[in-house]
Amino acid sequence: MTPTVQLASDLIRRRSVTPEDAGCMQLMMERLEKIGFRATYLRRGDTDNLWAVRGDSGPLFAFAGHTDVVPTGPESNWQHPPFEPVIEDGYLFGRGAADMKGSLAAMVVACEEFVAAHPDHNGRIAFLITSDEEGPADNGTVKVVEWLEEQGEKIDWCLVGEPSSTERVGDVIKNGRRGSLGLELTVFGVQGHVAYPHLAENPVHRLAPALAELASEKWDDGNDFFPATSFQVSNINGGTGATNVIPGEVKVICNWRFSTELTAEELQRRARAILDRHGLKYEANFKLSGQPFLTAKGALVEAAQRAIESVSGEATELSTAGGTSDGRFIAPTGAQVVELGPVNATIHKVDECVCAGDLDTLKDMYREILCNLEM
Amino acid sequence: MTPTVQLASDLIRRRSVTPEDAGCMQLMMERLEKIGFRATYLRRGDTDNLWAVRGDSGPLFAFAGHTDVVPTGPESNWQHPPFEPVIEDGYLFGRGAADMKGSLAAMVVACEEFVAAHPDHNGRIAFLITSDEEGPADNGTVKVVEWLEEQGEKIDWCLVGEPSSTERVGDVIKNGRRGSLGLELTVFGVQGHVAYPHLAENPVHRLAPALAELASEKWDDGNDFFPATSFQVSNINGGTGATNVIPGEVKVICNWRFSTELTAEELQRRARAILDRHGLKYEANFKLSGQPFLTAKGALVEAAQRAIESVSGEATELSTAGGTSDGRFIAPTGAQVVELGPVNATIHKVDECVCAGDLDTLKDMYREILCNLEM
Ligand SMILES: [Zn+2]
Ligand SMILES: [Zn+2]
Repeated sequence: MTPTVQLASDLIRRRSVTPEDAGCMQLMMERLEKIGFRATYLRRGDTDNLWAVRGDSGPLFAFAGHTDVVPTGPESNWQHPPFEPVIEDGYLFGRGAADMKGSLAAMVVACEEFVAAHPDHNGRIAFLITSDEEGPADNGTVKVVEWLEEQGEKIDWCLVGEPSSTERVGDVIKNGRRGSLGLELTVFGVQGHVAYPHLAENPVHRLAPALAELASEKWDDGNDFFPATSFQVSNINGGTGATNVIPGEVKVICNWRFSTELTAEELQRRARAILDRHGLKYEANFKLSGQPFLTAKGALVEAAQRAIESVSGEATELSTAGGTSDGRFIAPTGAQVVELGPVNATIHKVDECVCAGDLDTLKDMYREILCNLEM
Repeated sequence: MTPTVQLASDLIRRRSVTPEDAGCMQLMMERLEKIGFRATYLRRGDTDNLWAVRGDSGPLFAFAGHTDVVPTGPESNWQHPPFEPVIEDGYLFGRGAADMKGSLAAMVVACEEFVAAHPDHNGRIAFLITSDEEGPADNGTVKVVEWLEEQGEKIDWCLVGEPSSTERVGDVIKNGRRGSLGLELTVFGVQGHVAYPHLAENPVHRLAPALAELASEKWDDGNDFFPATSFQVSNINGGTGATNVIPGEVKVICNWRFSTELTAEELQRRARAILDRHGLKYEANFKLSGQPFLTAKGALVEAAQRAIESVSGEATELSTAGGTSDGRFIAPTGAQVVELGPVNATIHKVDECVCAGDLDTLKDMYREILCNLEM
């Protein structure tokens, strides 16, 4: 077992279901302190956060990640108990193997190797780790970013260890994410009996054509880095349960994943215009979960691409697809942000696993990125 | 207190919430047996039914009604306890005063007066009473009608005591009702994550334009007796509760109230055509709760109109508006059916009441109808 796989296993053994850290940060710091990292623990609410840094001056590079994992569901559904790491047919099994304790192990060992080769490196290397990425994320990375701003610190380059790869490690890196805008919409009518529709006003009937328009609206065409902005209804509920009562209101929860061609404000304005044009009486509560961000090019993307090619011999694809990540909190500070991690096929599923060899490949890529950036 | 108001009070005192009869039928029969009615009790499931008849030959006239009442809700919300009848300012208060124990009392006393004056009347006078009109109505009037068919009996004229009046007793009689067709619609999509809409198919998005078309469709123009057919959604539900999941299906419950210009089969065909044209994957369960029926003219309508005018001096309006009634089960046998009862302003509400004097007016109208039909 390589040091990377060993450390990943030790992390998996800790039952760190969100928001628990379960000692993972301490385990990482035992290793990092030995090579000169200084830790600041930032407990916020129920969440543990860690900021650790090596070096005193120069550009600031941060590895970002999370020690928490999503719940396992009934453990009896797992062929390999989720918190008892085991290697079988070359795969390391366990909750968090791919998302993202394998990445954390690769980051730590990459630093050990880099520091051994460059004890007097130029810049500063840091870890920004939270135990609440999979949860509400209110007390995690966002709070560390606030604290860094208070300290006057600014991250130049951030490498997030989220599992970006689809078939081979490094085949895809994320250089941005779409924005996410939520809407809780309540459309009001007048409740009544279905036999007396003239005394009532059916909010579902009022809503239907407006919803059809929202669903068919072309919000933008996307751009070179982003697919077109998409709108999706996740929930719709109206009615008392009784089959002879016209409901007084109907509630819709929906969400936009939006490109950098649009702002959240523009989306809100256009959505309201559609609702207004259909004459709806409504209440619309918008919630912005994340601005879109993009690290189109620059030293970090280039360093990552070169590292992947030199380690695996393969080209990498830049992508902004998928859900949000904690990169949404870091990118707005002006940092370049890319996400590079293992294959994501099994994340959040039973019998989560990662090819054990991939963790060392990933470790090599991480180390080469530090080299390429001349840290 | 007049005999009609006294009997109405005695009926109200019996807590006959659906499907309970609580002795109401027995109380009515004590009176009716004394004047020569013969009772057949038809218990079906949890429901009591009564068929009582006087006379051996000639045309068959039936008073139809129900002894059950809707629940009271918290009795503390009532100023007058719902099962303790009391007269205040000329109004008789209590659950069922208007719907429809007042009518039952008026029917019994009307018969007493009619039989006293015409002991050897020409036709047959009957009571068709159930304790499940306000509930599912599966074991009530529909079962008595089945039994009558088995006996080879056919009602010629049926007077339903439902509270038809709006401001003054007799100002409106119902000479028909719209049909009621229910639909439980499930539209299927493919569940997925809102960030990966290309891997999912949102059934709410597919439904919206079809629903808009159903809601705006002009099904017919009605006719002289019926308003235009109306479509109403009563319930719509889709989504897991999670805000980032595209639902796999959405359920809609809706209802048509339809005129005699259309059949239930036509409505189903046209609804399916709309759903099909929008390319929905769906399951549609239609349920016909009642065919529309109409007693356009004839001896019964005429007898009722003349009776009302002679008793109150006022003209009456024919209407088919409102919900369904047990008339839907009786009319298909070929009977003429009209509904005449007290003012319906307080039915199904707290502090249900009826003008005590109206019950005797109604009793006089009922008696005069029997006279006008030369029973
Ligand atoms: Zn993750
Ligand atoms: Zn009733």
